[in-house]
Amino acid sequence: MPTHPFTDNQAWLGLLKQIRQLGQQEIQQRFQQVSATHKQDGSLLTEADTATQAAVKTYLAKHWPQFAFLGEESDHTSQQAALESASGCWVLDPVDGTTNFAHGIDVYALSLALVIEGQVVAGLVYDPARDELFHARLGLGAFCNERPLTSETNSITQLNRAVGVIDFKRLPKPMASALATEPPYASQRSFGSVALDWCWIAAGRGEVYLHGSQSLWDYVAGWLILNEAGGRSATLNGETVFTPSLIKRSAVAATSPSLMALWQTHLNSINQ
Amino acid sequence: MPTHPFTDNQAWLGLLKQIRQLGQQEIQQRFQQVSATHKQDGSLLTEADTATQAAVKTYLAKHWPQFAFLGEESDHTSQQAALESASGCWVLDPVDGTTNFAHGIDVYALSLALVIEGQVVAGLVYDPARDELFHARLGLGAFCNERPLTSETNSITQLNRAVGVIDFKRLPKPMASALATEPPYASQRSFGSVALDWCWIAAGRGEVYLHGSQSLWDYVAGWLILNEAGGRSATLNGETVFTPSLIKRSAVAATSPSLMALWQTHLNSINQ
Repeated sequence: MPTHPFTDNQAWLGLLKQIRQLGQQEIQQRFQQVSATHKQDGSLLTEADTATQAAVKTYLAKHWPQFAFLGEESDHTSQQAALESASGCWVLDPVDGTTNFAHGIDVYALSLALVIEGQVVAGLVYDPARDELFHARLGLGAFCNERPLTSETNSITQLNRAVGVIDFKRLPKPMASALATEPPYASQRSFGSVALDWCWIAAGRGEVYLHGSQSLWDYVAGWLILNEAGGRSATLNGETVFTPSLIKRSAVAATSPSLMALWQTHLNSINQ
Repeated sequence: MPTHPFTDNQAWLGLLKQIRQLGQQEIQQRFQQVSATHKQDGSLLTEADTATQAAVKTYLAKHWPQFAFLGEESDHTSQQAALESASGCWVLDPVDGTTNFAHGIDVYALSLALVIEGQVVAGLVYDPARDELFHARLGLGAFCNERPLTSETNSITQLNRAVGVIDFKRLPKPMASALATEPPYASQRSFGSVALDWCWIAAGRGEVYLHGSQSLWDYVAGWLILNEAGGRSATLNGETVFTPSLIKRSAVAATSPSLMALWQTHLNSINQ
């Protein structure tokens, strides 16, 4: 019987090691070429995307042949079929933050999650520029490299002292306008990588988060990591963000339950 | 007679080396402690600010005793007196991007410029997290480490393909609302360090830039670097951003004259 990353610690550590190595080799080395030329380079991005997806897919198929595979680069029909696989499905975004990568901005990541029977059982987000591997298994906590992530280390409890990580692009217009003109937080940031947004909230680099529309492969690993770190999240309608489907989801999140309540109350008040 | 960084290449290279070393020692080592704990740490930030300003001031006074010194940490009266010094004045922001630093976000920089007779003759912005030293001397071009920066490498000429680096916080409200709801650019970013914003535009990591209110020590070095890289900038009123005074300035900038014209036309149309 094939090993399972959730119960077999050795296999899990092997996967972490492999993702780190592939991220350096297939993503980071190409980014350094983009960065050195100061040119927007779409071809290096395409290479990084394609080579990373192929290498990860091969590794996963060898070690866990029972699971299906859903890649950002696959077509919609095969993505849907993979997601409906009875045994479970890996979900990969080889390079999240593609605009950043092509522009020489060092904020992008590989995102990988395992979904079994409608549950996210494992999530990894690897940031090759900082050599930070965020990872979580359901019920076993979240980590950045070897350090446990816990929202309890974040001392900010008031919304007006928080850093808000906000993507304005796909928000309801009244909400975007209100946040841009009457910000309830102390500072606003937009970094341009959904997978890292989730992880950076989990690590307390920002306290509240808002994004209007995320694809499954963008959010699924980061969502588990924030959950396991003790953070909270929901869609703008108050539903659980993760759903085992290809439907895009909005995301509201915070480092703690109390900040989440303040943030949701504020967003509801301006979403009229 | 003391050496002058503008004409004496050895002294200039010595200054670059010294700033890099101080940035690693006084800023980056403390940031690694903030980052490792996942706690917002104001005391390490204060230490980094104070120690960096003291060390830079000592080095400058030793090598160029003829110039006055204006630090972000000084009081308003002595800042004004320094700026009015007949021989010239160094302008330092020891750590620009303080919120990022305290939150464990690795986007912050040391900014240093030399102003003589109402002209910015030299500017340095050091990003210790990426070990990137942006530097320029008036008329001698801009560099990132040893690589020349030139806006000609940026192939993006249309506003709707540009990355816009936008700080919403201090913009006129109708403008903030219009940008948040009807963005004219492809993607929006907010990184939280004015000094690096200017340098990253100079390096083509974003194409257009907007900030509502910047202090002299935030913008002065980055402003020269963008100028020397071939970029363009102005205030929202169309004035030159740099003025040898403590008055805060708005900043509109772009990688090229043609994008600048498109960006200014758009901003004028929404600033009613």
